[in-house]
Parts: sequence; C-alpha cells; structure tokens
Amino acid sequence: APGRDDVLDAAVDFVRQFTAENPRAGDPAHRIAEVTAEIERYGTYEHTPAELTFGARVAWRNAARCIGRLYWNNLIVRDLRHVEDPDGIAEECFEHLRVATNGGRIRPVISVFAPNRPGRPAATLLGEQLVRYADDPRSAQRVALAQELGWKGGETPFEVLPLLVQPGSGRAPEFYEIPEDAVLEVPLEHPRHPGFAALGLRWYAVPAVSDMSLEIGGVTYPAAPFNGWYMGTEIGSRNLADADRYDRLPAVAELFGLDTANDRTLWRDRALVELNLAVLHSYEQAGVTMADHHTESTRFLAHVEREGRHGRPVPTDWSWIVPPLSGSATAVFHRYYDPPDPDQRPAFVHRAPA
Amino acid sequence: APGRDDVLDAAVDFVRQFTAENPRAGDPAHRIAEVTAEIERYGTYEHTPAELTFGARVAWRNAARCIGRLYWNNLIVRDLRHVEDPDGIAEECFEHLRVATNGGRIRPVISVFAPNRPGRPAATLLGEQLVRYADDPRSAQRVALAQELGWKGGETPFEVLPLLVQPGSGRAPEFYEIPEDAVLEVPLEHPRHPGFAALGLRWYAVPAVSDMSLEIGGVTYPAAPFNGWYMGTEIGSRNLADADRYDRLPAVAELFGLDTANDRTLWRDRALVELNLAVLHSYEQAGVTMADHHTESTRFLAHVEREGRHGRPVPTDWSWIVPPLSGSATAVFHRYYDPPDPDQRPAFVHRAPA
Ligand code: HEM
Ligand code: HEM
Repeated sequence: APGRDDVLDAAVDFVRQFTAENPRAGDPAHRIAEVTAEIERYGTYEHTPAELTFGARVAWRNAARCIGRLYWNNLIVRDLRHVEDPDGIAEECFEHLRVATNGGRIRPVISVFAPNRPGRPAATLLGEQLVRYADDPRSAQRVALAQELGWKGGETPFEVLPLLVQPGSGRAPEFYEIPEDAVLEVPLEHPRHPGFAALGLRWYAVPAVSDMSLEIGGVTYPAAPFNGWYMGTEIGSRNLADADRYDRLPAVAELFGLDTANDRTLWRDRALVELNLAVLHSYEQAGVTMADHHTESTRFLAHVEREGRHGRPVPTDWSWIVPPLSGSATAVFHRYYDPPDPDQRPAFVHRAPA
Repeated sequence: APGRDDVLDAAVDFVRQFTAENPRAGDPAHRIAEVTAEIERYGTYEHTPAELTFGARVAWRNAARCIGRLYWNNLIVRDLRHVEDPDGIAEECFEHLRVATNGGRIRPVISVFAPNRPGRPAATLLGEQLVRYADDPRSAQRVALAQELGWKGGETPFEVLPLLVQPGSGRAPEFYEIPEDAVLEVPLEHPRHPGFAALGLRWYAVPAVSDMSLEIGGVTYPAAPFNGWYMGTEIGSRNLADADRYDRLPAVAELFGLDTANDRTLWRDRALVELNLAVLHSYEQAGVTMADHHTESTRFLAHVEREGRHGRPVPTDWSWIVPPLSGSATAVFHRYYDPPDPDQRPAFVHRAPA
C-alpha cells in the first residue's frame, strides 16, 4: 500500500491537472489544502464528483493500448462509491450492462465502486469482463471457482458465467447469475453464406473490462468496470479465431470449402475475412453498435491530431493499436507514436488475474 | 568518423566474439595484438576472410526487424573488398543478382565491397534496393537523379531503374542499366481469376537491400548489398497495396466485384487476400522461391528457440516481425521478444537515403 507522502504527491499532481484542464475550477490552492488535511488525518481523501468524472475520463485518454480514445470526454461515469457490499455491487453491475447496452446503441460507461482505504481494501470483481462465456478457454479459472462456490452450469456452448464478487474483507467470493435482460447477445450469420448460422457462433454486445483498477490522484478504485463498443476484429480475429480461444478458423474454412492442406492457399487469411464480415454484418443486423477496424483507425488518428492541438501527447502502444487484421491496410500502421508511460496517472492498471 | 580508440574497442570486442563463437580460431590474444598494431598505424584494419564471413552472418542474426533469420549461418558472403571503382561495383552487383537468383531457387547472398578508410570514404550504392521500378513512388528521387545523369527512361510501367553508384571521391554518381539476364521477374496471375493477369502487375525475384552499411568490429562497409527471398506480404500487402506505393487495392477490388462503398464490407481485407494469393501463386508457378507469412513466422520461432539453446538473446522489433496481413493468425503475434539493441554489432545500419 502507498505511504502517506506518495498519496499526497499523487493527490497534489491530480488536483493541479484537474484545475489546469478545468479553468472554472479556480485556484488549486484551496483544494490542495483541503486534500492535504484529509490525507494527514485519514491517509486518503474523497474525490469530488467532478474530480471523479474527470479522473475516469483521463484514465481512458491515457490508455496507451486503446484505439477508441477519440470519445474519451463522453464517458458516462456512474458514481457508486457508496456501494461496497457484494449484493449491491452485483446489482449495479447488471444495471451498468443495461445502461451501456441501451437497446443496442452502446454507450461508453464506467461504474466506480468504493475505493481502497488504508487498511481496508475494497471489494473486487473476479474475471476479465462482466460478461464472459463458460466455454471460452480464457475463463477456465472463473468457471472452476464458480463451480466450487456452487454454480451448476458450464455444460452448454456460450453459456454466460455468473458474476463473481470478492468482498474486501477477504471472505469467500459470492456468485450472481446475470439476469437475461442485462445481456444482449448477437447470433452470428454471414451475409452471403446461409450455412454460417449453423456454426452456432454468437457473442455478447458489451465488452465491460472488470480486471483493472482505476487509479486517480493516489486513490485506487479496484472495482471500476468500464466498457466501450466492440471493434469487430476483437471478436472475429481474436476471441473466435485465436488457437487458444474458440479456434474456429478451421470450421469456417470447411464451411467455405477452403483448401486447408497448405498455409500458402491463405485459407486462414480468407477464413478470417469471412468470420470478421459475419461479425460486422450480424451486429449491424441486430442494431448493435460495432466499429470496423478501418473506421476506428481513422478515428484514432483524428484523436491524435486533436490531442496535439491541445498540446497533449498521446502515449500509444503500437502493437495493441494496430488491428490484428490487415494491419498495413489501416492508417494507424504507418507511423510511430509517443511511447507509453507506465507511471502516467490517472490510469487503468491491471490487477493480478483471478 | 569514429576515433582510433572507438575503432580499437569495437575491433577487440569483435575479435573476442569471433574467437568465442569459433573455438578453432584459437586464443584471441595474438589476433588482438595484430589488430591493435594495424589500427595504431593506419587507423583501421583488415578483416580475415573468415572474420568477414562471420561478421556479415552475425549482422543478419542481429537484424531485429528481420523475420528470416533462421538461416543466418548459410549466408553466402562474396568478398569483394578489392572492388572500389563504380564500373567494377556495378559489374559485381549484376553478378550478385545472378548468383542470388540461381534460376529461381533464390540464395541469400551479400556482396561486400571496399570499406571506408580514415579520410577515404568508399563508394556507395544509391537507392533502396539493387532492383527497383521507376514508377514506384518510393523511387522518385532515384528516377530524378538518373534522368539528370542522362538516363532516358521511366516512361513505361514496371521499368527497371539503372543502378546508381556514388564514387567515394565525391564525384558525380554513375548510372548503369542492369542487364536483362540479371533481373528475373514474375508477371502476376491469380489461380482462379483469369482476368487478374490483365492488371499488368509484376514484381522482381530478388529483394537486394542496398542502402544499409555493414558494420563489423569498427569497420564500415557502406556498399554491401544483401538479399534473401521475398515473403509474399512484402509485395502483396505493402509494395503493391500501400496507398503511397502502387495502391492497387481498388483495382483488385473492382476486378473481383467487391463493394467498395463502405469499409465495413471488408473489401480492402478481401482484396489483400486475393492480391497476396496471386503473388504466392505466381512465384510458385514461375519456380521462384517465396515464403508465405505463416511459414516464415513458424521458422522465426524455431530460430528464437534455437538461439535460446545457444544462450543467445534474439533482439526483435515486434512491429516489423509481425506480418502486415492477418497478424494475429501468425504464431509470432502472440508473444514478446528481447528488445532491439541499437548498439549491438555486427549490424546493418541505415545510411541516410539518397
Ligand atoms: C468506445 C469504444 C471503444 C473501442 C472501439 C475500444 C477499443 C479497444 C481495443 C480494440 C482495445 C484492445 C483490446 C484487446 O486487444 O484486448 C482496447 C483496449 C483498452 N481500452 Fe478501449 N475501446 C473503447 C472504449 C474504451 C473505454 C470506454 C475505456 C475506459 C474507460 C477503454 C479503455 C481501454 C483500456 C484500459 C484498454 C487496455 C486493456 C488491457 O490492457 O488489457 N476503452 N480498446
Ligand atoms: C532468407 C530470406 C529472408 C526473408 C524471408 C526475410 C524477411 C524480411 C522481412 C519481411 C523484412 C521486413 C521488410 C520490410 O517490412 O520492409 C526483413 C527486414 C530485414 N532483413 Fe530480412 N529476410 C531474409 C533474408 C535476409 C538477409 C539475407 C539479410 C542480411 C544478410 C536480412 C537482413 C534484414 C534487415 C537488416 C532488415 C531490416 C531492413 C530495414 O531496417 O529496412 N534479411 N527481412
């Protein structure tokens, strides 16, 4: 846990940044004095709602691996710092999914639950995202844990896992089935191949990352799930295609009659295009927001340009920003960026996986 | 130009590495004494043929951006250090192309011409590769220079540029038409679309990089063109597809009747697959060595493993190693590597473009 001086330094830096970027917030001196007194007394301090909103948005702006940052200033911030018990957290996570889903017109949302306090760690969410499927090899640990806790499930394909909340007290995690009305899903079909639907592939609408802490000005919010909309390649090139995930390229290739005897036939490359097309097409048909990688690339460069006009660097991890499909056909491929700075704050920071 | 002490330090490091990796070379002490005396007298020294071969091969092994390094120890090293006049260099570059082409069974070759000496810079080659086309936007400078020097050409598509040799003396460059028998080319056709050939696309067989210096143990060889065989994506995803190169995706899309109204149709991604397939197919039909990106990825990981068994790191630039097509479908995508070390030697080092 950070010492009092570290918290104070980080808090002062943050208040300065907040006032610098929000001229109407006035002189930082008063707020710095306030925050200092609070930290001296309690070892931590409470963000104002405006500070919390700003901090969460800037954490997104600072996410070096995120191609979707153009809209960082439109993030909807749900202030749920008063919620700290597992039941309450679970309820509000379901509500997060409903707010974000918005009938298909996905909204970027973050729900910020109670922060860690000195000697009193807050509750956390176990698992990478709010919604995950039980048969995704990435979920093996969460499946095992849920079953240990008494969950009876995990037998059918694309079964939504229960939410797992780890109380801050260190007591055993609780599990909660996610209500059906909180999870919008899209069955995948192909615009030209009627047989595609029979592959039985589907995915959920809202990618809500739940294994990262939000760190703002010396305060850590370990339960702060956030979501944007999907970029198609995340599903079409990675989740359903990676050999250690759903590994469905061979099945797609077979459906399209591709010659898989030899890598030189580019059957993998062709199957990827068909699978990605099915993803984009199906989300569009279902009225669920999704961006293609060409569009997100163009948007990201608009973001870099706009940030430049504000005199701000855009720390960027090239290997995460360049899409996994047709890299060099996207505009983001052909340049270098400001290097990521792991010490930059506010930021989303990976917790150890659980 | 490096000072005497720098040359000496670099030379001693290199001799130590040479003897460490070539146990039969014996104790380095004798050779270090010899080299030291030579440097004290002349400010430079002469590599033995074995040192030159080893140095060139290790420069390849150290090339952090090269996916083709598995065969580093098989590089054919042509010792042409006695050749320093433009006519002789041009003749030997043509011979390099013939040796490397080998009737289509491409061999990795380097031709090492005279090194720089104190106060006496050596001749260099102008242009990125020995073979380049006049209508490639990348060649604009070389075209302009060749025409200034009196070259009458550059009117027809895919016209091979003359070789430009810059004498070490600083006199004007000389230009040399490359003889037809030195340049094997492959007209591109598609295995299933007979109309593809009418696009009139073609490419040459041997990518021979000519704008990098070879640096070994404090000695710089500024004219040291080297080649491997092509990986298909270099031509299919970059040279013929990049918007600032031949930009032929729209033409390919039209040929295949793709809907280019919207990026979401993935027409670029599909056109890339067709173009890359045409490249791989045509080289195979023509009997010209070419690797696909899946195969080169697998080979590269075999290289990393083998180097590991020798206790050697493999400095690697992820953003260059991951192929520009279907990145995540290749094995090299899913891991990190030892970081590139710009100070590592022997190495190929970019000269300023000319
Ligand atoms: C609005 C639409 C958005 C799009 C299209 C988008 C796109 C992406 C993509 C493609 C990645 C890489 C994911 C991967 O390869 O695993 C990513 C990573 C990331 N994004 Fe976004 N994003 C969006 C919204 C957001 C929001 C709202 C936040 C936070 C408030 C955010 C924060 C991050 C972070 C922290 C990462 C890195 C995750 C990690 O290290 O595992 N993104 N984003
Ligand atoms: C044997 C087959 C080879 C293959 C398939 C191969 C493949 C590649 C590829 C795909 C690149 C990236 C090119 C680009 O994106 O512009 C590259 C770069 C490079 N390769 Fe290789 N290579 C081979 C042989 C060699 C040889 C023989 C050498 C030197 C003796 C070499 C040295 C390099 C260097 C120095 C670079 C970086 C060039 C730069 O910085 O512009 N490669 N290679």
